[in-house]
Amino acid sequence: MTNEIHLTVHARDGAARLGALQTPRGDIRTPAFMPVGTAATVKAMRPEDVRATGADIVLSNTYHLMLAPGAERIAALGGLHRFMNWPWPILTDSGGFQVMSLAKLRKVSEKGVAFQSHIDGSRHELTPERSMAIQRLLGSDIQMQLDECVRLPCPPEEAERAMRLSLRWAERSKAAFGDQPGRAAFGIVQGGVEKDLRIESARALVAMDFHGYAIGGLAVGEPQADMLAMIDTVVPHLPDDKPRYLMGVGTPDDLLQALRRGVDMFDCVMPTRAGRHGMVFTRAGRLNLRNARFADDPRPIDPLSTSPMARDYSRAYWRHLVKAGEILAMMGLTEINLAYYQELMAGARKAIGEGRLDAYIEETRRGWAEGESGGG
Amino acid sequence: MTNEIHLTVHARDGAARLGALQTPRGDIRTPAFMPVGTAATVKAMRPEDVRATGADIVLSNTYHLMLAPGAERIAALGGLHRFMNWPWPILTDSGGFQVMSLAKLRKVSEKGVAFQSHIDGSRHELTPERSMAIQRLLGSDIQMQLDECVRLPCPPEEAERAMRLSLRWAERSKAAFGDQPGRAAFGIVQGGVEKDLRIESARALVAMDFHGYAIGGLAVGEPQADMLAMIDTVVPHLPDDKPRYLMGVGTPDDLLQALRRGVDMFDCVMPTRAGRHGMVFTRAGRLNLRNARFADDPRPIDPLSTSPMARDYSRAYWRHLVKAGEILAMMGLTEINLAYYQELMAGARKAIGEGRLDAYIEETRRGWAEGESGGG
Repeated sequence: MTNEIHLTVHARDGAARLGALQTPRGDIRTPAFMPVGTAATVKAMRPEDVRATGADIVLSNTYHLMLAPGAERIAALGGLHRFMNWPWPILTDSGGFQVMSLAKLRKVSEKGVAFQSHIDGSRHELTPERSMAIQRLLGSDIQMQLDECVRLPCPPEEAERAMRLSLRWAERSKAAFGDQPGRAAFGIVQGGVEKDLRIESARALVAMDFHGYAIGGLAVGEPQADMLAMIDTVVPHLPDDKPRYLMGVGTPDDLLQALRRGVDMFDCVMPTRAGRHGMVFTRAGRLNLRNARFADDPRPIDPLSTSPMARDYSRAYWRHLVKAGEILAMMGLTEINLAYYQELMAGARKAIGEGRLDAYIEETRRGWAEGESGGG
Repeated sequence: MTNEIHLTVHARDGAARLGALQTPRGDIRTPAFMPVGTAATVKAMRPEDVRATGADIVLSNTYHLMLAPGAERIAALGGLHRFMNWPWPILTDSGGFQVMSLAKLRKVSEKGVAFQSHIDGSRHELTPERSMAIQRLLGSDIQMQLDECVRLPCPPEEAERAMRLSLRWAERSKAAFGDQPGRAAFGIVQGGVEKDLRIESARALVAMDFHGYAIGGLAVGEPQADMLAMIDTVVPHLPDDKPRYLMGVGTPDDLLQALRRGVDMFDCVMPTRAGRHGMVFTRAGRLNLRNARFADDPRPIDPLSTSPMARDYSRAYWRHLVKAGEILAMMGLTEINLAYYQELMAGARKAIGEGRLDAYIEETRRGWAEGESGGG
């Protein structure tokens, strides 16, 4: 097991774990939030500034990179880390989710999924083998199996069909991953909102001995209660010594509720996308900087934030920039949100270490509720 | 003359001067390039990163700020420096140029100019007195007189009418500026491309004893030769101990040719606007990063640039970002261009100090010509 990506658990608090996922490119402190760098860039952020918010790892999208600029091109240029000037760990998804949500004329078969690019209509095919080949070309540290992600709500038989196909693709993905010292392959638990399907999926994947396990298919807008029920269902069937990754989730409260149930890793476009649209997450809840009530507000967004953007400018300034469509608004509010998500993770890690996670979550939720806007 | 903005000339080389414009907010090393921060932000740049490129001063636009968020609002929030988190010197224009180029239904009278906002059609009036009042509310360190800027080419009688109106507005602007310790008011030489008009304008303004003198009306795309001829015409009629500012110009070569003729200060949207559109200025000429020839180019934009963005990423990466419409492309290429403009100014200052400005200009132009693309 030398030179393999390895989870060390330092402390526990209920089902929650404080740990570190050790990789040759650096440790990933868990619970971890991974900013999304879709097209080899976390939108509106320089990599050193992403790092400064506290990110140990970013996620990048196989689907986007295979279309432009192309995996072979990135490989010839020295790999994705060098391409985007991010020397720390990178997780890549398999492309499956974006094919389902973005691509046109997609056709799923046993072999894989054929589709047309949402950019230029060009034809492509993604198979478990091709997805892993692309992720290997990119040089990704954590590579995800290709899966079929159904849109919820979904009939149980459809969830079952997609789950079983995803299991067969998982086997092929694991074989295609092969032996890549210092890199990891993760399987993805599917099964919609059916507990029995989720358990079957988890057990079958664990038998394949992946380096880590993701819970997929829960980011498409279903109620938080359903998502938490699926986490509660799946986690007991995942090995204790491997990382658990909840894909595409979520709000600050989603993250706290999920890590409390034993999830170690998260990614979500929410902080970056919201920032580009004038919304920030703070310890006092969400603020929509388009709101006229900020026009004359001299207060900073959050004087205690780790981001200078939240401390050194007035809300009135941000409102002006958002209204004027200025790029600095997208830059600054994205950074503030990424910093807040990382602060949440840091706070949760500290609380787990001190055995007071529930109190931390309560305090955090109270801060949101007592803030001007309510809601985390 | 205590507590007044004051030019100290350290060295000369022909008509060119190496100096410093001393202000309570810091020295402006001359020749100086002022990045344009139209709406209280240099587009796609954080203020600390503008500073890091070597900028001692930025320009901001009265027209834009009077429309949004409003001068009174900025004053109530502590002034423009605090609003945009730029504690160093700021020059504001009078709004006249933007009214002529952007506003709708404008009507020039002796009193001033009435117009409708290009944003929402709301009605406004800009008089010499109101322009100075706005600039005072903003807390601008260098305030410009309101002038009427004619579009070239233009009949001599039209240039003469506008120049004489601008002189009358100069008197009113000077009176409205009043006494603001530590701040400066600049007059603007007009007169189209008519030498006699330019000389008359310069002499009349000098008699009004401004803190500095701008040459206006030469940024609207006329041939470089006409522009240089006007500089050669005007400079001998301006006082030797006051700063000279060529408004809205220009390409790197324009700057070198103009400073060689005794101009001390420049502003231009070219480096920022070009950067947002995928074009960079380098010591090897201009590069259009949209070009397919960069798709596999592993070289940095310029390994000797002062900007990490020019050193730490491949041209292939920038081309990818530009094609994908990524915000980081605008951020990075803007910074690279601002850094190059500041490097040019630093090189010129050093060369003036060493009495070898002509050689420096020749070397610089040779670099552009021998570069891949040619042209500065």
